This record gives sequence, structure tokens and C-alpha cells, in this order.
Amino acid sequence: MADYRSMWAELGLDLEKHDILLGALPGMYEGIFLTQDNRPEGMAYFDFVIGEIHGLRVKELMDHKASGGKVVGLFCVFVPEDLILAAGAIPVGLCAGTQFSVPDAEEVLPRNTCALIKSSFGFKVGRTCPYVQASDFVIGETTCDGKKKMYELLGQYHPTYVMEVPQKKTPLGRELFLEELRGLKAKLEEETGVTITAERLAEATALVEAKRAALRRLHNARRARPVPISGLDALLVTQVAFYDDVVRFTEKVSALCDELEGRVARGEGVAPAAAPRILVSGSPMAVPNWKLHRILEDSGAVVVGEESCTGTRYFTPAVAKNDGTLAGQLAAIADRQLETHCACFTPNDERIDDVLTLAEGWDVDGVVHYSLQFCHTFANEAVKVEKALAIRGVPLLRIETDYSDEDMGQIRNRVDAFLEMVRR
Amino acid sequence: MADYRSMWAELGLDLEKHDILLGALPGMYEGIFLTQDNRPEGMAYFDFVIGEIHGLRVKELMDHKASGGKVVGLFCVFVPEDLILAAGAIPVGLCAGTQFSVPDAEEVLPRNTCALIKSSFGFKVGRTCPYVQASDFVIGETTCDGKKKMYELLGQYHPTYVMEVPQKKTPLGRELFLEELRGLKAKLEEETGVTITAERLAEATALVEAKRAALRRLHNARRARPVPISGLDALLVTQVAFYDDVVRFTEKVSALCDELEGRVARGEGVAPAAAPRILVSGSPMAVPNWKLHRILEDSGAVVVGEESCTGTRYFTPAVAKNDGTLAGQLAAIADRQLETHCACFTPNDERIDDVLTLAEGWDVDGVVHYSLQFCHTFANEAVKVEKALAIRGVPLLRIETDYSDEDMGQIRNRVDAFLEMVRR
Repeated sequence: MADYRSMWAELGLDLEKHDILLGALPGMYEGIFLTQDNRPEGMAYFDFVIGEIHGLRVKELMDHKASGGKVVGLFCVFVPEDLILAAGAIPVGLCAGTQFSVPDAEEVLPRNTCALIKSSFGFKVGRTCPYVQASDFVIGETTCDGKKKMYELLGQYHPTYVMEVPQKKTPLGRELFLEELRGLKAKLEEETGVTITAERLAEATALVEAKRAALRRLHNARRARPVPISGLDALLVTQVAFYDDVVRFTEKVSALCDELEGRVARGEGVAPAAAPRILVSGSPMAVPNWKLHRILEDSGAVVVGEESCTGTRYFTPAVAKNDGTLAGQLAAIADRQLETHCACFTPNDERIDDVLTLAEGWDVDGVVHYSLQFCHTFANEAVKVEKALAIRGVPLLRIETDYSDEDMGQIRNRVDAFLEMVRR
Repeated sequence: MADYRSMWAELGLDLEKHDILLGALPGMYEGIFLTQDNRPEGMAYFDFVIGEIHGLRVKELMDHKASGGKVVGLFCVFVPEDLILAAGAIPVGLCAGTQFSVPDAEEVLPRNTCALIKSSFGFKVGRTCPYVQASDFVIGETTCDGKKKMYELLGQYHPTYVMEVPQKKTPLGRELFLEELRGLKAKLEEETGVTITAERLAEATALVEAKRAALRRLHNARRARPVPISGLDALLVTQVAFYDDVVRFTEKVSALCDELEGRVARGEGVAPAAAPRILVSGSPMAVPNWKLHRILEDSGAVVVGEESCTGTRYFTPAVAKNDGTLAGQLAAIADRQLETHCACFTPNDERIDDVLTLAEGWDVDGVVHYSLQFCHTFANEAVKVEKALAIRGVPLLRIETDYSDEDMGQIRNRVDAFLEMVRR
């Protein structure tokens, strides 16, 4: 990695603390990712991206800012990346996946908050995430109580704009969300000085749609038995989608898919055909939260899908064809976002249907329901998911955890017992 | 208490379990309430109400049902009682305040759920609350993730209707809430067969407004030093407001206020004038959750106000004068409900203003911020409340707890230390 210290200093990072964070990553990454058997060659790009995690991409953002562009931070799939791109700004998913930043957060936030929220907030107050430092402002949303209220406190440290996501799927809820998109458009135009025209938005949506299409292609390649890519690698790709350059990322994923489809044609996989195939469903996993996938795949299973915001909820569905006017495009984007089957909605039975569809279509032997501790919405939905799967005879294991390593042994034991049952 | 066993059996209560629950209450109530010094005579009515907690009032509801009326359960101040009354139905706040029903809930709900939610759900699945059993359906709302998702599961055990409360205070949010009120009106009309006319609604709102006015009068009497009523008794009155007959309750509270105002005029109080005056702010307290008030007043403080849904958020503000049409009345009700400064909103700085106003107007020596464990919204707002009070030199103690008795000793110690500081 090149020397980025002056850039990090300019961004106001706590350099000493940041050194500790960054120092731990290569060994961890090597142990988890590079030791995997028969990895696709196309993963080399993603290895490079992680190697440069706080370097090259941040440099690109800084260059963009130097030439007058804006950078906008976000945490959630409900924030439309295309609207941000249409304003000539770059959307970046913010750091939120490590225990490292949790103690900084706990000096302010309630401890009974999910690790993802604490980690993201801690990155800001501890000044250890170059992405939030580089962002001109952050766009939050109201998809859960924890984030909704965290954004109020985050606003005391960093410019923060919050958009509302409705809670029931009603015509007025759609109207409200559409109005929030219009408000966000105005905010972006004000911050960037760029007018979001129908042409600009169509172009941006096409870029994001191409990215999503590439990710869906990868997702479909995982239907094969044996599966051509590990769950760890597939998860990593989706995680990187949140902050990489959209065009380059799409190219690299497409190249990876060419390779994976070749493997599928040849019947070549990363795990034995008999390896238990697991669907992970639930809360999102931000870089470097690889804990559950690692345990599952270390134990001989292979993860074939993520019904998650770092999975299917990120790349499905597509924006529908529309009349191409600004109003028509915004409505199509709103409809697309509201088809995200997030546990923030009540009821949200479409998510149950998604899990059942994935369980069948991806030839799944068992589902692991993953809830971040203190995430009320997903923890409650686990009850319904388990019931629906039981009717189909698909076993479910509920895992509720945080970012610490303390419960790794316990989770391993539970996973081993689960896989033992699944194998029979 | 008369023999209500056949009524309880008819309601499908688990009689054995219910006996244990009801058996514990009199001794507990006597120890906490009847041992207080110099209680207002007007509290005798409320003692009677608690003595008949699952008896006489439930009998009234059953008589109402026998004559063709409906009973509607609710949990939250956002559900408009007047709309329910206007349909000839009786609104009742449901049981939700005891550890007794928590284990039943934990067989289904995530353990990391607040005690209020677990208690209410446990009362249904354990069949120990005659109010929910008597209710024709329950009206839930989306004011927090925990309740929002609990209602989905509750719907598997009892008819449940959920209305959305917006999260940002925007014109579209108001429109959405108004539409939810219209939907609720239609639902009530469908369930009761009664058409809610402008006349019926005006009459019902007048009843509820008179109740709120009486509670505001009581609240204002607590400004006096010495204070004419204990915090325990005042809290009890608001708790009873949720399920008692609206007309009788209003009369009894008004009579109590006559007495309290006489006390104030004579400079007579329930505690020495020098007793530390405490405002309790935060999560609601349902019957029989008297834990914090009891500890505070046992320790020599007196609670002079509750900035809470079982306090000011229940009885302020008033419904504004309007044109008297159905549409005008509904809009005024929506505006009133949306002026409830609940932590479900983002931002919700009006609540901070309320706390500051109460701290000054009620001559408060310290504020105890009460969060039910795992209640993200209030736990987060505590950070802002504490900061705002610190600027005014008002000390704050944060208490986060559940319904168990296990932490009583620890809370006592913290309260004692806090009062020691407040007294200086």
C-alpha cells in the first residue's frame, strides 16, 4: 500500500488509533480469505481492494473532492445511490463492521445498541474511518429505532440528513417516501450545485442497475451444486459494492461471473457437492464482519446466499421501466426501494416468501437466521421465518451475536450441531 | 371483591395462574400505597379501583358487550380514545406492567425486548389479563420497533389492527397519520356497526378532553411546595386513566383536585417542603410498575411530575378548537396526537423543551431519566436530555431497568447517592 499518511492526517484521522486498526486487517484477511481452496481468480481484484481499504479508494474520493465533487456517506439500502450519482456526487457505504470502534461509541451511545450502529458511530467519534471523514454529509434513514436516534447524535459530530422510510406498505406511505426522495434530490442539488435532470438520473440509474445485474448474476451462479464460489467471497463482493467505483466494480464482478459460469459448466466448485448448503438470512454484515460465514465454512458448510442488506436486499429488484421523465423515474426508484423486504415494515411477509424461494431455488439444506444483538426487527421476524421454514421441512438455526470474538466457540458448537442434523 | 370466577372462566383466563397474579397484588399495594403518610382522601376511589382491578371494571366491559357494544384494547397514547368512544366502543389500556407475565412472553419473543412489551404479550399468551380477553380487537401502532414487530406476532393470538405513526414531523407525515385515522375510523365503524358522525365524535372528544383537563389540573397542583400528593398516587391516577370509565374517572379526579387545591391553599403537603423534588422522564409505567417511584419516595424524595406516556404525554396538549366538521375534527385530533413529544420522532427536541419547562415550572431539584431496558428511543434521547439539563445546572440520574426486583438494591444505592448530591 502506498503512503497515505498525509491524506489521513488531512482527513483528521486519529493516526495512532487508525494504525492499530489497519495493522490488524491483513493478518485477519489472510487467515480467513487467502487460505480458502480453489478460489476464483477474479477474487484477486477484491483482495486488492481490501488491501487498499483505506487507501486508493479514499484517494479517489479526495481527488473527486479536489475537482469540486462531493462525497456522500450512507448506511442503508433505502438510500438511492443513483440519485447521489446523478448529482455528480459519489455514494459510499460507511465503516460499520468491527468491534474496534465499539468502545468509542459506548462512551456516548447506550450499550444495548446493535454492534453495527455502535461501530459506525464509534468510527466517527474515534476518527478512524476515512470514508466518513471524507464525506461532505451523511444520509441516514428511519429503518430502525437504533439508527434513527443514533443519527440525531451523529449530527452533533458530522453533517447528517435523515430521510424517512414508511413502516406500512400503504399508498400514503409510498407518497411519503416519494416526497422524501424529492426532498433528498433538493438537498443533493443544494449541496452539489448540480441540477439532477432526467438525463443525468437515467444515466446514473443505468450504472447502478448494471451493478445490481452483475450481482444478481453472481447470486444466480451460486445455485449450482457444487457451488463455484465460497460464501465468504460472495459476501465480500457485495460488501465492496457499497463503496467501490460503480463502473469498475461492475466490470470486475462481470469478469468474475464469466469465470464462475465456466466453473458451473465444468461442474467445478469450491466445496464438495455434498457440503451442506446454507442460506444466511437476517441483519446486514459490513466489512470486516465475516464471523458467521467463516464459522460456517470452517465447519464444512458452504453459504450459497445471503437474504440480507449485504445480499439479495441490495441487488433485487430492478428499477422498473418507466416513462423517463424525472417524476416517472423518481416514482420507479421509490417503488423499487419499497420492494426491499426489510424488517422495518409491518407486516413484512414478503421477506418470508423470499426466504422460501431462496431455500428452494438455491437447493438449501438449512437456514441460519442472523440477528445482530438488540436488533428488534429481525429478532422478531425470526419467529415467523422459523415457522414458515418448518412447514417446508427446512431446519433453521437462530444466531444472535455482536462483533466480539467471545462467543465464537459457542457459535461454532451450535453450528456444528446444526450441520450434523442437516447432513442426516 | 365479589366472585368473578365464572366471568374469568368465560373469558378464557388461566384461572390457576391468574389466582397467583391477583393474590400477590393486595399485599404489594398495601405496602407501597396504604402506608404513605397523609394521603388525600380522594385516593380512596383509586384504592377501590385497584382492589377491583380485574373485577368490577371487567364486569362493566362484559355488560357493555352483552348489550351489543365493543371493547377495544390499546397500548399507546397515539391511539385516539375519542374515536373509539365515538363508535360506541370502550377503549382500555391493556395489562403490561408486571414481571409475572414476562416468562410466558419469552417463550416466543426475543428476550432482548423491553419489559413492557414482553409483559403485554405474555398476558395474552398466558391468558392472565381479562382486558385483552374481553377486547374485540387490539389497536397497535408503529411507535417503536419492539411493539411494531410484537403486534405481528400478537396477531396470531388475538385480532390486532396496526396504525402507522410517522417518524418525522413533516406535512406528508401529518397527511399519512390523518389517513391512518380515517382508516381506523372505517375499521371501528365496520367492527361496531356504528357510523361515527361529527356529533358523536365531538361528544366523545369532549369527554376525553374533560378527562385530560382534570389530569392537567392534578398535574398543576403538583407545582406547590410542599407538594399535596405523592408521586406514587399521582402516577396511579394516570395509570387508571387508561382503563377506567371516562366520566366517572373525570369526576373522581376533579374531586381529588378540589382536595389538593385546598391543601395547597393551606400549605399542606405529603412530604416536607425541603424534600428533594424529582421529575421522572422517559418510558411509560403501566400498573403495577411502581418500582422507581417507590424507591425515590422511600428514599425521602418526592416525585412532582412524570414526563411520560403515563404522565404529561397522556394529558397534553388539548385538541384545538376546529370547525366541527368530521374532517375538521379528525385533523384537530391528528394535530393533537402529533404534538405528543414521543421519542419515536426524529428529531424530537420538543421533548427536551418539555423537560426543561417542567424542571423550572415544577421547581425540580433533579431529574431521573427512566428507560426500560432495550428501549432504544428513550435510551438515546437520555444523552440529549442530560446535556440540556446540565446547561441549566439540573442534575440527572439515568436509570435503565426492567420489571424484575433484582436490581432494586442497586437502584436504591444510586438514588440515595443522587439525592445526597441534589440536597447539597
